[in-house]
Amino acid sequence: MSGATIGVAVVGYGYWGPNLVRNFADTPGAKLVAVCDLRKERLAPLATRYPGVKLTDDFDEILRDPEIQAIAIATPVHAHFRLAMSALMAGKHVFVEKPIASSAEEAQRLVDEAARRKLTLAVDHTFIHTGAVKKMRELVETRLGDMYYYDSVRVNLGLFQHDVSVIWDLAVHDLSIMDHVLPFQPVAVSATGVSHVPGEPENIAYLNLFFENSLIAHIHVNWLAPVKVRRTLIGGSQSMIVYDDLEPSEKIKVYDKGITLNGNPQKNGEKIYQALVGYRTGDMWAPRLDVTEALGTELKEFIGCIETGTNPQADGRAGLRVVRILEAATQSLALRGRPVELEPVRRVA
Amino acid sequence: MSGATIGVAVVGYGYWGPNLVRNFADTPGAKLVAVCDLRKERLAPLATRYPGVKLTDDFDEILRDPEIQAIAIATPVHAHFRLAMSALMAGKHVFVEKPIASSAEEAQRLVDEAARRKLTLAVDHTFIHTGAVKKMRELVETRLGDMYYYDSVRVNLGLFQHDVSVIWDLAVHDLSIMDHVLPFQPVAVSATGVSHVPGEPENIAYLNLFFENSLIAHIHVNWLAPVKVRRTLIGGSQSMIVYDDLEPSEKIKVYDKGITLNGNPQKNGEKIYQALVGYRTGDMWAPRLDVTEALGTELKEFIGCIETGTNPQADGRAGLRVVRILEAATQSLALRGRPVELEPVRRVA
Amino acid sequence: MSGATIGVAVVGYGYWGPNLVRNFADTPGAKLVAVCDLRKERLAPLATRYPGVKLTDDFDEILRDPEIQAIAIATPVHAHFRLAMSALMAGKHVFVEKPIASSAEEAQRLVDEAARRKLTLAVDHTFIHTGAVKKMRELVETRLGDMYYYDSVRVNLGLFQHDVSVIWDLAVHDLSIMDHVLPFQPVAVSATGVSHVPGEPENIAYLNLFFENSLIAHIHVNWLAPVKVRRTLIGGSQSMIVYDDLEPSEKIKVYDKGITLNGNPQKNGEKIYQALVGYRTGDMWAPRLDVTEALGTELKEFIGCIETGTNPQADGRAGLRVVRILEAATQSLALRGRPVELEPVRRVA
Amino acid sequence: MSGATIGVAVVGYGYWGPNLVRNFADTPGAKLVAVCDLRKERLAPLATRYPGVKLTDDFDEILRDPEIQAIAIATPVHAHFRLAMSALMAGKHVFVEKPIASSAEEAQRLVDEAARRKLTLAVDHTFIHTGAVKKMRELVETRLGDMYYYDSVRVNLGLFQHDVSVIWDLAVHDLSIMDHVLPFQPVAVSATGVSHVPGEPENIAYLNLFFENSLIAHIHVNWLAPVKVRRTLIGGSQSMIVYDDLEPSEKIKVYDKGITLNGNPQKNGEKIYQALVGYRTGDMWAPRLDVTEALGTELKEFIGCIETGTNPQADGRAGLRVVRILEAATQSLALRGRPVELEPVRRVA
Repeated sequence: MSGATIGVAVVGYGYWGPNLVRNFADTPGAKLVAVCDLRKERLAPLATRYPGVKLTDDFDEILRDPEIQAIAIATPVHAHFRLAMSALMAGKHVFVEKPIASSAEEAQRLVDEAARRKLTLAVDHTFIHTGAVKKMRELVETRLGDMYYYDSVRVNLGLFQHDVSVIWDLAVHDLSIMDHVLPFQPVAVSATGVSHVPGEPENIAYLNLFFENSLIAHIHVNWLAPVKVRRTLIGGSQSMIVYDDLEPSEKIKVYDKGITLNGNPQKNGEKIYQALVGYRTGDMWAPRLDVTEALGTELKEFIGCIETGTNPQADGRAGLRVVRILEAATQSLALRGRPVELEPVRRVA
Repeated sequence: MSGATIGVAVVGYGYWGPNLVRNFADTPGAKLVAVCDLRKERLAPLATRYPGVKLTDDFDEILRDPEIQAIAIATPVHAHFRLAMSALMAGKHVFVEKPIASSAEEAQRLVDEAARRKLTLAVDHTFIHTGAVKKMRELVETRLGDMYYYDSVRVNLGLFQHDVSVIWDLAVHDLSIMDHVLPFQPVAVSATGVSHVPGEPENIAYLNLFFENSLIAHIHVNWLAPVKVRRTLIGGSQSMIVYDDLEPSEKIKVYDKGITLNGNPQKNGEKIYQALVGYRTGDMWAPRLDVTEALGTELKEFIGCIETGTNPQADGRAGLRVVRILEAATQSLALRGRPVELEPVRRVA
Repeated sequence: MSGATIGVAVVGYGYWGPNLVRNFADTPGAKLVAVCDLRKERLAPLATRYPGVKLTDDFDEILRDPEIQAIAIATPVHAHFRLAMSALMAGKHVFVEKPIASSAEEAQRLVDEAARRKLTLAVDHTFIHTGAVKKMRELVETRLGDMYYYDSVRVNLGLFQHDVSVIWDLAVHDLSIMDHVLPFQPVAVSATGVSHVPGEPENIAYLNLFFENSLIAHIHVNWLAPVKVRRTLIGGSQSMIVYDDLEPSEKIKVYDKGITLNGNPQKNGEKIYQALVGYRTGDMWAPRLDVTEALGTELKEFIGCIETGTNPQADGRAGLRVVRILEAATQSLALRGRPVELEPVRRVA
Repeated sequence: MSGATIGVAVVGYGYWGPNLVRNFADTPGAKLVAVCDLRKERLAPLATRYPGVKLTDDFDEILRDPEIQAIAIATPVHAHFRLAMSALMAGKHVFVEKPIASSAEEAQRLVDEAARRKLTLAVDHTFIHTGAVKKMRELVETRLGDMYYYDSVRVNLGLFQHDVSVIWDLAVHDLSIMDHVLPFQPVAVSATGVSHVPGEPENIAYLNLFFENSLIAHIHVNWLAPVKVRRTLIGGSQSMIVYDDLEPSEKIKVYDKGITLNGNPQKNGEKIYQALVGYRTGDMWAPRLDVTEALGTELKEFIGCIETGTNPQADGRAGLRVVRILEAATQSLALRGRPVELEPVRRVA
C-alpha cells in the first residue's frame, strides 16, 4: 500500500449503498470523502457515525471535488450510465453496481471512455469475490476436465421488481459468476418466461446459453417460488461440482463421478450402452472455503487497481459481457425463445 | 369383479416385463396366460414360478390364442407400433409401455384403430397412479387457483441410452405426469440440449412448454448429473406445490404462499412494488399419500376398463399427446430451441 | 402503555449487552438511561449513537440513580447474584441474563428478595419468546395429547467456555424451553459427560430428566461436533413435533403420527405386536410462525410487567427451576450419571 | 476355495431366514442342504425354487444329518441358545442371528462350547460388513486420532416388539458396530428409558457407555419417533465422522475439524478460552464406499473361516461382548440409569 490514499465518494444510499460506505470506510488505501443521495434525509445518520464525511444531494459537487478520485455508483440501474459517464469525463475512477448499464451500447461507451482516459472502471460482480466462486474457478481450471454443462437455479418468493424483469434482477448474478468461472464465452442465448402480474415484467424465466463447443449453460430464475433455491451444477469430463449457496458451510461439493467412453464398440443391439458408456463413481469432497467478506476483498482490489493501473477482475468489459447477454436474452424472451446471437466482446478496447 | 376373467399375455421380458408379469398374476379379474420374448432362455425361470403359463418366442402364437383377450407390450420403443397394431388388428385389448410409439403418426394410427374396433388401448404412464401424482391432480383442481408454472428437474448419473435421447427416456415421465395433472394442453414446445458422447443422442436437455394462457412449463433432464434430483415445483395463484419423489414419506408439500395484487396503484417510483405486489406466507402442509403400488392400481384399472368398456385415464390419446410433444421437442432440439407448434389432439377420435 | 416511562440501565456490555441496549432503546415505555461496564473503553461508541445515555464503569452510580427503575444484567454468570441482589436491595426491578445465578441457593434468595420487595424479577430466557417455542407450547396444550418424550440435540463446534461446562452454556437453552413448553416439572435428573481438554469443564454431556409420569426428557449438548444441530423431538399420544431451529422457515413440523393401543389382546405368540400396537400415519403440517424478534417482545413484556405489577413468563422462579436442574445435573455428572432428585420449586414464594 | 463344499442348514424361516437362504444358495463353497421351521407351511414356496433342498419342521433331523456341517439360526432370540448349543454339541459350526443369546451367561457357554470343540461360532452382526462400517473402522484407525466420543441416534415409528425392549431390538445394531469400529471396550453402561404401552417393554431408551479413558459413547433408540433417523457422530482429536445410513450415497462424511490446545496459558480472565482452545476447520470428504451386499460378504467369510479354521470378525466373543452390554443396560434401566460395571470379556476362551 502506498502512503497516498484514494478519496472515494459513494453515490446512491439505498439498499446497497450502506454496504459500500461501511466497507470503503474500512478499506486500506481508501478514504471515504463523501456520500451522495437525492433523498438527503437518508444521509442524516451518517453524520454522527462518519463525522468528517461530506453528505450531499448534489452529484456535481462530487464531480468537482478534487479530493475525490473514485466514485462508487449504487443507484437504480437506469441512472448508471449517466452518472458513470459523467464521473469518467470528470476524470474519476468508477465502480458501478451490477448490471453496469441498461444496454450493451451504454456499457460499451463506458468501457471505451475509461480506456481512452486510462481510468479504472469496475463493476460490482460481488459473488466472484466469494470463497465459493473463487474455488469453482480454480476447480474448473484444474480438475473438471472438458466442460459439459453449467446449470443454475436461483428462485425464491419476492422481491418483485417493477422496472426490470427477473432476468436483470437475478440471472445477472449467475451470468457474472459464469463469466468468471468458465473459460469460454457464449455465442448465443435464448430465453423464455412469463409475467403473472399484468403489465409487469417477467417474474419467471429460463435462459439457455450456447457455446462453440458442446458446453451448454442454463439458468432458471423465479420470483414466485415457494422455496428458496440457490443451486448450480457444473459438469465436466473429469469431475462435477454442486454449488449450493444456502449451505452454511459446505457450499461447494466436488464429485469424482462421470462417464468413460470405451472406444468405438461394434453396434450390436442392446449391449451397446454398456459397451460404449461406463460410469465412474468416486469420492465426494467439500473443500474449505475462504470466508473473507467478498465486498471487502472487492473494494480492496478496486483501490489496488487504481494505485497500480492494473485491471480489476470484473472490469468494464466483464460488465459489458454480462449486459450483452441480458439484452439478448430480453430480445429472445419477446421471440418466445428464439436464439439471439451474441457478438463477441473485444478483449482489448 | 365379474366371474369371467380376462386372459392376458405379456410381450417383452426385459427390464419392465417382469413387473408386468408379477402384477398381472395378482390382478383380480385377469389371468396371466402367456409370456413372450424373442430371447426364449430369459423365460425359463417362469416355468417353475408360474407353472400354467405359456412361454413362447412366437408373437403370432399370442395373436392366435383365443384364451388371450389383452396383450401388454414391454419391448423396446421401436417395436411398440408394429406389435400393438397387430394386436389390435387381431382383436386384442392393448396395454403399451411408454412412450406409446416412436412417432405421433404411429400413435394416432393406434388410437384410431382401437377406436374403430372399440378395443381398450392403454399406455403405461405408471406415475399417474402413484399417491403423489393423484394428490397433485386433486390439489391443482381444488387449491392452487390459477396455474402459473410447472417446473421439473429429473437428473442423475446414467443410464445412457443409445437409441433415444434423454428426452424420450426421462422427460416422458414429466410429460405424462403433466398431462394428467394440468387442466391445459401445451400449444408449442421448445427444447435445447447437447450430447457429450460423439455420435450419440442428447444426454442433457431443457424443454419449454407454452400454453395459451400465462402458464409456462419447463423440464430439465440430464443423464450426467453428479446428484439424483426428482423435483417438481408447481405454482398457482392460491398455493404452490413442491413434489420431491426422493423423499421417503413427505413427497408432496403444499405451501400457502404467493403474491397478492393490490389493484392499480399510481406509479410513483420506488414504492411501486410494495404498492402493487404483496407477499403472502402461510402454513406448509404435507398430505398423507396413498401408498398402494402404482402398477397394481394401473393394471386393475386396465382390466376394469376392458370389462366395462370405459376409458383408462392414460388411454391412447394420452399416449399420443405425450408422443406429440416428444416429437416436437426433438424437432426443436435440432433448431437450437426454436419453438415448434403442437397440433391439438382431438378429444374424440 | 401509561404516559410514564421506566428508566433502564444495562450492566455488562460484552457479547449480549449490545442487544439489550439496542432493544431497550426501541422499547415503548422504556427509556435507556445508562450503560455500565468495568471496561469503560467499550462504551465509547455509544456516546455518538445514544447521546443522552450515561456511560459509566461505576455500578454504585447506577444503584443510586433515581432516574433508573430497572436494571438489566448481562455480565458473566458468577456476577449475576451479587449485582442482581444489590439492584433489588436498591429497589430496582431486575432483568438477568440466563442462567439467573450460579446456584439454586442464590436464585432462591433473589426470588425471595424480589417477592419481599414486590419488584419484578425476570430472567432472559429469550427462546420462549420466539415464534417457534410459542407455537410448541400451544401445540403441547392443544394437539399432542399425553406427553411421551422430549428429546433435544444442541451440538456444534465451539465456543468452549472456561468457567462453566457445556451444560450451563448450552443445555440451559433447552431447559428454559422445556420449562415453558411442558406442563410438568422434572423430579430427578441424571447427567453424564466428559472433558477432552485437561483441567477444563465438560464439553460434551447428556442429561436425562425424569418425571412423575411416563414422560422422559433427554438433552444432548456438545461443543465438539463436526456439524451444527439444533433439533428437538417431542412425542405425544396424539401427534409429534420436530423443531429444527436451523430451518430458515419451517422450524416446526407437526406429524399426525403415533400408535394406537388395541385393548388387551390375548397373548398368542408372534401376532401379539400387531394385535396390541397399531401405527397411525397422517399429514405433516408446518404452521406459519410469528417472526417478531424475540428479545424485543421479551423486553416489552418486562416493561409491561413493571407497569402493571404482573409476573413475566420467565420470572425468577423460572430462572430458579432451570438453575436447580443445572446444579443437580452437575452433581450427577460427578457421580457418572447417578440420578439426583429435584426438590420442587414452590409456586408461591 | 477348496473343492469340498460346506453343507448348510438354515433354521427359522421368518423375517430374516429368507435372506440367509437366498445368500447361502449363492455363496461359493457352501451348499444349502436344508431349511427348517416349525411352521412347515412357510417352507412350501421353497420346494419349486430350490428343488433339492430338504424342508423340515424337525430340528433333530438337521442335527443328525451328516451332510450338514453348519447351521444358521434365525429364530426368535429366546431360542438361540438352545438351538445353537444343540448344534455345537452335534459338532456343527454355527451362525446365529444377533443378539447371539438372551443373556451373557448363555453367550459365554456358547463361546466356551465352540472353543472346546474347535467349531466356528459366528454372530450375524451384518452391519460390520457394510462398506460404511468397514470404512469407519479404517478411518478410526488411521485418521481420527484420539477417540473423543461415539454418538448414535436410531429412531423411527415402529416396529414395537413384545418380548424385548427397544435396546435389544435397535441398540444391538449400534453396539455391534461400535464393537467393531472402536479400539476400546466399555467398562460400564447406564441406561434410561420408558414404556408408553402399559405392561410392555421400553420403547425409548438412552444408553451411556463409559470407557477407561475420556472416550464416551451414547446411543438413542426409539420406536415412537415421527421421523426416521440413523445417524452416528464419531469425534476424534484429528477428525470427525458423520455416518448417516439413510443417505443414498454419501453415507460417511469425514470432517477435518476440531480443536487445538495451546499449551498452558496463564489464566487471565476472559481471554482464556481463545488462549487455550483454538478451532480448526478444513475440508469435508465423503469417501466412495464398497457397495457389495453385506450379508453375502459375511456368509462368504463364515464359510471361509470353517474351511481354514480362522476366526470370523464377529465371532462368539463379539456376540458375547454385545449381549453383556445389553444385559447390563437392562439392569441399569431398572435402576433409573445407575451405571452398571462391565466385566471384561476374555480375549482367549
